[in-house]
Amino acid sequence: FLVYKTTASCLDAGEALSCNLYMADPITSLDEISKKKEDMKFKMELFCLKLQRQVCHALEEIDGSKFMVDKWSRKEGGGGVSCVLQDGTVFEKAGVNVSVVHGQLPPAAVQQMRTRGKKLKEGEKLPFWAVGISSVVHPKNPHCPTVHFNFRYFEIDDGTGNTQWWFGGGTDLTPAYLVENDVIHFHQVLKNACNDHDKSYYRKFKLWCDAYFNVTHRGERRGVGGIFFDDIDSPSQEKAFAFIKSCGNAVIPSYVPIIRRHVNDEFTEDEKCWQQLRRGRYVEFNLVHDRGTKFGLFTPGARIESILMSLPLTARWQYRHEPSPTSKEGELVKVLREPKHWIPMD
Amino acid sequence: FLVYKTTASCLDAGEALSCNLYMADPITSLDEISKKKEDMKFKMELFCLKLQRQVCHALEEIDGSKFMVDKWSRKEGGGGVSCVLQDGTVFEKAGVNVSVVHGQLPPAAVQQMRTRGKKLKEGEKLPFWAVGISSVVHPKNPHCPTVHFNFRYFEIDDGTGNTQWWFGGGTDLTPAYLVENDVIHFHQVLKNACNDHDKSYYRKFKLWCDAYFNVTHRGERRGVGGIFFDDIDSPSQEKAFAFIKSCGNAVIPSYVPIIRRHVNDEFTEDEKCWQQLRRGRYVEFNLVHDRGTKFGLFTPGARIESILMSLPLTARWQYRHEPSPTSKEGELVKVLREPKHWIPMD
Repeated sequence: FLVYKTTASCLDAGEALSCNLYMADPITSLDEISKKKEDMKFKMELFCLKLQRQVCHALEEIDGSKFMVDKWSRKEGGGGVSCVLQDGTVFEKAGVNVSVVHGQLPPAAVQQMRTRGKKLKEGEKLPFWAVGISSVVHPKNPHCPTVHFNFRYFEIDDGTGNTQWWFGGGTDLTPAYLVENDVIHFHQVLKNACNDHDKSYYRKFKLWCDAYFNVTHRGERRGVGGIFFDDIDSPSQEKAFAFIKSCGNAVIPSYVPIIRRHVNDEFTEDEKCWQQLRRGRYVEFNLVHDRGTKFGLFTPGARIESILMSLPLTARWQYRHEPSPTSKEGELVKVLREPKHWIPMD
Repeated sequence: FLVYKTTASCLDAGEALSCNLYMADPITSLDEISKKKEDMKFKMELFCLKLQRQVCHALEEIDGSKFMVDKWSRKEGGGGVSCVLQDGTVFEKAGVNVSVVHGQLPPAAVQQMRTRGKKLKEGEKLPFWAVGISSVVHPKNPHCPTVHFNFRYFEIDDGTGNTQWWFGGGTDLTPAYLVENDVIHFHQVLKNACNDHDKSYYRKFKLWCDAYFNVTHRGERRGVGGIFFDDIDSPSQEKAFAFIKSCGNAVIPSYVPIIRRHVNDEFTEDEKCWQQLRRGRYVEFNLVHDRGTKFGLFTPGARIESILMSLPLTARWQYRHEPSPTSKEGELVKVLREPKHWIPMD
């Protein structure tokens, strides 16, 4: 793996930062990482940090402003690197967060995993390690869609000394206005990333995405979807990681061309207002339904600012705002109510 | 009861609306109400509708604009009257909602009530009837605080043919800037309403309010409190109702003088921005923690627009916005982190 090799050689020289690979030093000490270069926990951490830098740089290039970088640590174990670009030229708010969280998973959380089919010892605290990257990008122009992506790796001791591991993640697009060609491009890039690994993935993960990003109380999806998956633990750890890397590397080519295409689109005050209403729905999904956000908000010692950096800078709620079904706004609502197959599913 | 008598005589004449007592016809049919004038369900419904009109008229007088009135029905049983004033002169968004919901409470909800100590038959659907008024008023001027109030009456058949009933509710204030005299006035009016009924109420319900409106993930209260209570079923149904009426009638005198005092206060762009950030916290509490909102969002057939009319017209989330502790903004945050006793507790 080129990524890992380059990193490793920098780490050996204790010069990870001067290599300019990351936005900040890794969360795990370089000493610990260099002792266990083949450990997936650390390979995933370095991949997340590298992807973070790539995404931040791609967005900085478009915006002209720089990301603010915060490195933080969690007293219960682990820490993170949070990068935020706020009130820029092109982006209203863009956050890219890498975190490493480890410690003892409480019995209640273990129980929840058991209901998801994990074979774990009941009623005990179990040692775990979670690494992930999570990002939401809200542009200012209502013709530029919001994107979200998240990739994570989880390891847990099952209570008998065996380690269970899996990957999860996804990428999805949330426009205020529907531009069918953009959505097709976005899905096609994600499908290509899937197809390199398993021809059944795109169909499965596209449908999973539509099912997950469902604002049930509104009867609407959050956006036009993408891919979403969890519990990826086959065919092998290396192959699962290769799939995650393909998905991570697809983020920029799936999204950046859409932003470049619309960044100078003219827009009216009414269009901006509609975008703000859609931002309100985004907040509703994240605070009411999103599993990750809810888990974070109720986790002691969690860094709230990093969890809630997914929220837009501004949002709006208007009583009984109902766009006409034949308007551009109504067109979007239609596909949110009945998700479409944007490209061939197989 | 003057309120009821006046209403009753109108109802007898089938002229409730021409009496100008309500914003819309009662939800329950006049026919059904007039047959059971002494039934608490109907007395509470008429009280809520009368309070709705009084609050709407008081706010219309300040704002100069009119409330939009929606009467809706729920196919599973009941309905409501939702009044909203949006983007007015003084008020950004003010919603006053009366609803009557009845039908069969599912076993899961019955189970939840049992954990709260209610003696109800397990594992069965039980017939229930809920009547309530709920309101949030968000003014435009950052020196004018937000107010929320809610009063409700609940009746349930315990499964053996006996009816259990109780009242709940409260009123609380959420300023963006702390004006101690306003908060003292607000609490004093509520305390007077409590003291007319039970000298132990204010202390108990003030502390309950601080405990309930807790944005736990921020370590902050939503605002400067007020009163909050549930399961009021003593000393008698009439006396409990009299207490609820005193609380309801205290809303206007507790709040309107504060608005009149500050409606013409000058404010800066920075102060408006701080108000918008506080609005964001309000959204966080309502969507993440508020029992009533969450219950509503997951209730099939609920009218989402009426539940979410508590959300502000606009809100803001800024990464790591931390006011200096000695600023006016910091002063507010201090009392949100450590609730104060604004007036003598006993």
